[in-house]
Amino acid sequence: MKDELMKMLEEREDEMIKIRRYLHEHPELSFKEEKTAAYIADFYKGKDFEIETNVGNGYGIIVTIEGASEGKTIGLRADFDALPITEEADVPFRSKNEGVMHACGHDAHTAYLLILADCLIQLKDQIKGTIKIIHQHAEEQPPGGAKSIMESGKLNDVDAIFGIHILPVAPAGTVGYHSGYSFNGRTYFKLKIQGKGGHGSSPDKANDAIVAGSYFVTAVQTVVSRRVNPMEAGVVTIGSFDGKGSFNIIKDSIELEGDVRYSNDEMREVIDKEFKRIVKGLEELFDVTCELTYTPDYPPLYNDPELTSFVADTLNGIQDSDIKEVKEFPKLSPSDDFAYYLEKVPGSYFYIGCTPKGVQQPYFNHHPKFDIDEDAMLVAAKSVGHVVCHFLDME
Amino acid sequence: MKDELMKMLEEREDEMIKIRRYLHEHPELSFKEEKTAAYIADFYKGKDFEIETNVGNGYGIIVTIEGASEGKTIGLRADFDALPITEEADVPFRSKNEGVMHACGHDAHTAYLLILADCLIQLKDQIKGTIKIIHQHAEEQPPGGAKSIMESGKLNDVDAIFGIHILPVAPAGTVGYHSGYSFNGRTYFKLKIQGKGGHGSSPDKANDAIVAGSYFVTAVQTVVSRRVNPMEAGVVTIGSFDGKGSFNIIKDSIELEGDVRYSNDEMREVIDKEFKRIVKGLEELFDVTCELTYTPDYPPLYNDPELTSFVADTLNGIQDSDIKEVKEFPKLSPSDDFAYYLEKVPGSYFYIGCTPKGVQQPYFNHHPKFDIDEDAMLVAAKSVGHVVCHFLDME
Amino acid sequence: MKDELMKMLEEREDEMIKIRRYLHEHPELSFKEEKTAAYIADFYKGKDFEIETNVGNGYGIIVTIEGASEGKTIGLRADFDALPITEEADVPFRSKNEGVMHACGHDAHTAYLLILADCLIQLKDQIKGTIKIIHQHAEEQPPGGAKSIMESGKLNDVDAIFGIHILPVAPAGTVGYHSGYSFNGRTYFKLKIQGKGGHGSSPDKANDAIVAGSYFVTAVQTVVSRRVNPMEAGVVTIGSFDGKGSFNIIKDSIELEGDVRYSNDEMREVIDKEFKRIVKGLEELFDVTCELTYTPDYPPLYNDPELTSFVADTLNGIQDSDIKEVKEFPKLSPSDDFAYYLEKVPGSYFYIGCTPKGVQQPYFNHHPKFDIDEDAMLVAAKSVGHVVCHFLDME
Amino acid sequence: MKDELMKMLEEREDEMIKIRRYLHEHPELSFKEEKTAAYIADFYKGKDFEIETNVGNGYGIIVTIEGASEGKTIGLRADFDALPITEEADVPFRSKNEGVMHACGHDAHTAYLLILADCLIQLKDQIKGTIKIIHQHAEEQPPGGAKSIMESGKLNDVDAIFGIHILPVAPAGTVGYHSGYSFNGRTYFKLKIQGKGGHGSSPDKANDAIVAGSYFVTAVQTVVSRRVNPMEAGVVTIGSFDGKGSFNIIKDSIELEGDVRYSNDEMREVIDKEFKRIVKGLEELFDVTCELTYTPDYPPLYNDPELTSFVADTLNGIQDSDIKEVKEFPKLSPSDDFAYYLEKVPGSYFYIGCTPKGVQQPYFNHHPKFDIDEDAMLVAAKSVGHVVCHFLDME
Repeated sequence: MKDELMKMLEEREDEMIKIRRYLHEHPELSFKEEKTAAYIADFYKGKDFEIETNVGNGYGIIVTIEGASEGKTIGLRADFDALPITEEADVPFRSKNEGVMHACGHDAHTAYLLILADCLIQLKDQIKGTIKIIHQHAEEQPPGGAKSIMESGKLNDVDAIFGIHILPVAPAGTVGYHSGYSFNGRTYFKLKIQGKGGHGSSPDKANDAIVAGSYFVTAVQTVVSRRVNPMEAGVVTIGSFDGKGSFNIIKDSIELEGDVRYSNDEMREVIDKEFKRIVKGLEELFDVTCELTYTPDYPPLYNDPELTSFVADTLNGIQDSDIKEVKEFPKLSPSDDFAYYLEKVPGSYFYIGCTPKGVQQPYFNHHPKFDIDEDAMLVAAKSVGHVVCHFLDME
Repeated sequence: MKDELMKMLEEREDEMIKIRRYLHEHPELSFKEEKTAAYIADFYKGKDFEIETNVGNGYGIIVTIEGASEGKTIGLRADFDALPITEEADVPFRSKNEGVMHACGHDAHTAYLLILADCLIQLKDQIKGTIKIIHQHAEEQPPGGAKSIMESGKLNDVDAIFGIHILPVAPAGTVGYHSGYSFNGRTYFKLKIQGKGGHGSSPDKANDAIVAGSYFVTAVQTVVSRRVNPMEAGVVTIGSFDGKGSFNIIKDSIELEGDVRYSNDEMREVIDKEFKRIVKGLEELFDVTCELTYTPDYPPLYNDPELTSFVADTLNGIQDSDIKEVKEFPKLSPSDDFAYYLEKVPGSYFYIGCTPKGVQQPYFNHHPKFDIDEDAMLVAAKSVGHVVCHFLDME
Repeated sequence: MKDELMKMLEEREDEMIKIRRYLHEHPELSFKEEKTAAYIADFYKGKDFEIETNVGNGYGIIVTIEGASEGKTIGLRADFDALPITEEADVPFRSKNEGVMHACGHDAHTAYLLILADCLIQLKDQIKGTIKIIHQHAEEQPPGGAKSIMESGKLNDVDAIFGIHILPVAPAGTVGYHSGYSFNGRTYFKLKIQGKGGHGSSPDKANDAIVAGSYFVTAVQTVVSRRVNPMEAGVVTIGSFDGKGSFNIIKDSIELEGDVRYSNDEMREVIDKEFKRIVKGLEELFDVTCELTYTPDYPPLYNDPELTSFVADTLNGIQDSDIKEVKEFPKLSPSDDFAYYLEKVPGSYFYIGCTPKGVQQPYFNHHPKFDIDEDAMLVAAKSVGHVVCHFLDME
Repeated sequence: MKDELMKMLEEREDEMIKIRRYLHEHPELSFKEEKTAAYIADFYKGKDFEIETNVGNGYGIIVTIEGASEGKTIGLRADFDALPITEEADVPFRSKNEGVMHACGHDAHTAYLLILADCLIQLKDQIKGTIKIIHQHAEEQPPGGAKSIMESGKLNDVDAIFGIHILPVAPAGTVGYHSGYSFNGRTYFKLKIQGKGGHGSSPDKANDAIVAGSYFVTAVQTVVSRRVNPMEAGVVTIGSFDGKGSFNIIKDSIELEGDVRYSNDEMREVIDKEFKRIVKGLEELFDVTCELTYTPDYPPLYNDPELTSFVADTLNGIQDSDIKEVKEFPKLSPSDDFAYYLEKVPGSYFYIGCTPKGVQQPYFNHHPKFDIDEDAMLVAAKSVGHVVCHFLDME
């Protein structure tokens, strides 16, 4: 069956590109992907399968392909939301939704998976076991879609889950993998520091919230510099210091916002504890009142070592001129809510190179000029196709 | 003549109160005091004197009262602008100009001086020398009105200048004086710190302007704590830290605004030098680019010791039941553009107590609930009247 | 009697100089002034008076001169200890006690007062009231001698107390006075910060006391920059940061030492409270343990306004070619334990100019090259003599 | 030959233990290992080989074992210096050299390698190629012995070099490996900050070096927290803040010492640049003068991926009941001058578990209570023996 599937995918590469470009022109923000979800559902219309829409806390879609014979259940996920970025890429299929852009490649993820799913539906009779296609909404915006989809219980019977992310760190044809902790986890925080306002000439009658906030920023650097294991990753970023006021009035309160990253659960705990202690210390240090919102978003993403080896071995073991290199990638600093699936179901999230041809220094995901080599979609479809066939014992 | 003047002032106290309440109901912001200036000009209409309007960079008014015989020239100044504050004082003559309030007492300053001026006009025949009444616009808003009035040259012939400020630190009946440096000088600054934006997960690819700004705030504390002579006054207030951004994006630039206070010219120089050096050091320290706007506003106000003693001795030497106590006041932290007059002409700026009767903890100038004991106006009129008579040798 | 006294003092100027030079050659550290005290006691031997030695917690001496007729009791104090400084002044009577130096002028204080006392003893019959001569030990070293002398009860009957300090800020012939708070108070502190040691490569396994200490130093700057009234004086100096260790071992504990200065009791309370709160905040901020020793030394010195005016008026009212100018001096930043006397007894501590002749930029007190114009001693003796005569009504 | 070698090693395990205990009792500090080197040389006396002593900048020894037939050249290194630590381990063969201790396991390194070398000498006739045994001095003390041994040229003909370090993170029987950058590099620094001394009461007349130093400590935290790639390791430790002084004197200069760690050459460059820029910025920020000594010690240690796989595959491919587990270890934070060999010669430095039997939380290397399971020596000897045989094609 595998060879048949690969041939079908090759024949439908143009279709992937067409779909991807359509989606690229019509990006929608997280939790607002109404039309994208409708487009996906429409794609499946009339096909022989079970579809569930509005899964989880948004427009999530699960397509279940029951094979002809019994076997394991495998989950495949692609996300479909876009970002609040104004596109600057010079492409003919530029975003028509001003201020919104598929700058992370979810259009390509969705396009390859639609075609792969359709091919698998057509090959249903040869399938052993069950394939669950997960079109996920809202990856870019915590709390994300993944958590709620897991909580829906609809993936409880899945034995393994796989997904890919395209990355312009390697050319199309390269597949990357990483075992164990692979994406950092993230926590969002908001810290309001309440001092006491007053006249700029009389600091002793006031309690300057800007001063307290600034010392907080300097003190919190020590969480990363002194508390995080140097061999692990930790980041504390204060992205917003909202202390706008009048030049001659001492500011009574300010608001900081930011996020925290960590490479594994142990670092998360360390940073949580230290961050909160510094906030408490600040209250005493400057006699201010702090209100802290500290919300873990996505956990560190943990790729099952066995299933990651399975992916690597599977792809290393095939002869396919589209899959040119399979290699270990380093850990990645960003977060992905695929981590939630992996908390409950073993699986592996791997990478598909997509550097545009001829480009030496590609723009990365989330850049207004982000662009891809569309060949990467066939590589993705085939790689995941191989993994499905191997996992369900359908060589 | 003095006794006659005092009697006239007593008789016209009600009028002072009426004028003050009218002005209080109709406050106007600095440089926009069109109607207030017209009201003042109207007050003088038909009287025997010389009036100049639109003096300086706004609605300044100078009234010159030439005495019958030759003598010295004395200047008397009252300011007439109001503040961008929404009144919360519970008075029947509350501001009718929403968001604008006579919260610093300039209404009372103007009211007493109008009546005093009118009385002096009436007593012209007995006057030796010349009295210049200065109704000054825009004290509250740098560059202020005083500087431009001095630059107009119209006060070049003044031998001494006096003014008063009402202050609710003492009851009506108390007159305060301070010799030498008495009000702090002030400098406005704006500092833009330019780093480099980036993704919150990758601080090493960016250059965090919020971090640089926060270290600036902590380092600049040392200007006051270690560089200013502890026996002198220095204040550096950052009133605004404009670094609002997105929680997961490293901020590329921030803008600070604030002001600097100093008790004398030497401290001004020290702070100027240190502040600017810290800004330059910050550029190196964090590899950021700084744009600094650093604009001295009002200089420290220097009361001529001889003329201050003259005021104190004059008021101590009289028997007047309205002037109950004459005493030294401490230096004041705020700034006043009366300092500009005193840079060129010797004089003294002194204080008139105005704590509302029965109030233990009065609201201070610039507070939305600022209120006064209107008796203070007669005290002001009489005190300045005594000084005029004594200075011009008209006992 | 006054004229007689003045004449006697003039005649004995050489003797003052001789005594001062002897003491200068034989300086002794605070609480160790055994020989100095013996020298003083010896000076009085055989004279007609009452002497008490070893008063207070050291070598304090009180000489009581009972006048012939009844009257008020006046105290006069001179201190006699020296400093742990190696003299670098180029004088023939250089310190013979290596590493110890009369670098604050207490030799001159003692010399003038010995001669003045002796003259007063000789004039006993004309004296109305009582004069208590206080030769005080250990001014330079907290807890100082003054506090214990007061506590001895031996000055309980004193109506007013006076003392002088020589200062090279003005030439010999100038007398300075300051009313109200005049010298700063001081508090000594020692802060031990206990973290946890470890290997330099693994900060996460340790808790770096040097980092905690450094943030403390930066945070404590805000006490002066933001909490002290800018019109008052406050200083926090960390004179010692004892964190010497090995370059590759994280330091487990450090010890800071320093002092705090304040211009009045209100500022003392503010700084006390803020300093201690910052220490407590630090414990939370960095999870360290702090041991704080916080010992107020000398209080702010408060010159009684009435008696200060009395001194100024007395000296302004005389004709004496040695006392050339009497003027207000600014507040002084250092501390003096004369403050303890003034907490219980009204009085005034005033200044005697002593800039060496021909010197433009004199070395100040406590400098290894400190030197004086010895004419200042006669000025001191005469000034204090005038005050005694006037105070005891012996014109 | 391999089996023969293994049997010989097993038979001589007791001898390893005996040697190790002797060395443990007689530890010597880096560059002072005269007796240890003599002991080693003595061990080889009378054997059939070439020995060179005093190699490099100390007591380094190279033993060259020429095989019977031609082949590759392999280097094996063990270090033999001890640490300035007072032993607290409760063992019968406790250090007899007070204050010096084999707290890093170099005694065990040397013991196993002596026996392995002796066995190889005995098997000379079967050896294809050359084996260079490197007994290295002074690993613990930069500049270390390795660099100078490489510079001696005596290892120029080596094709591959191997070494092991015992680590109590796993039981005896476990062998660990890590490919690529494996130990951090390190730089030593000393920073003298020169301000200007003065009296504690007058900070404006001085320039407080303690304040400047403290702000430096807080600012330098950002090198790790914001400049180092979070996925890589960077550490900046200030181990010494030498600012001891008098509580009431402003400190004129202080001296910091510390070290910097980095996981690869790119991070080294980043930290170098940022650290030096912050020092330069500090000079401007506080008007101080800085003298920086910044001396890279050991570089990051880079294990050749191919030879590391070779080690892993070799040890995974054998059946040996003493070698129970072969697995990847994480990167290590400390530094080792084995890195210098690997800069010139490909090779791999790997780990031998040595947790004392029955101990749950072992004391780590450099702890006064550090102890090992002596079984680890046989594991080391056999593992290295296997690698030698496999590398020289002598199965």
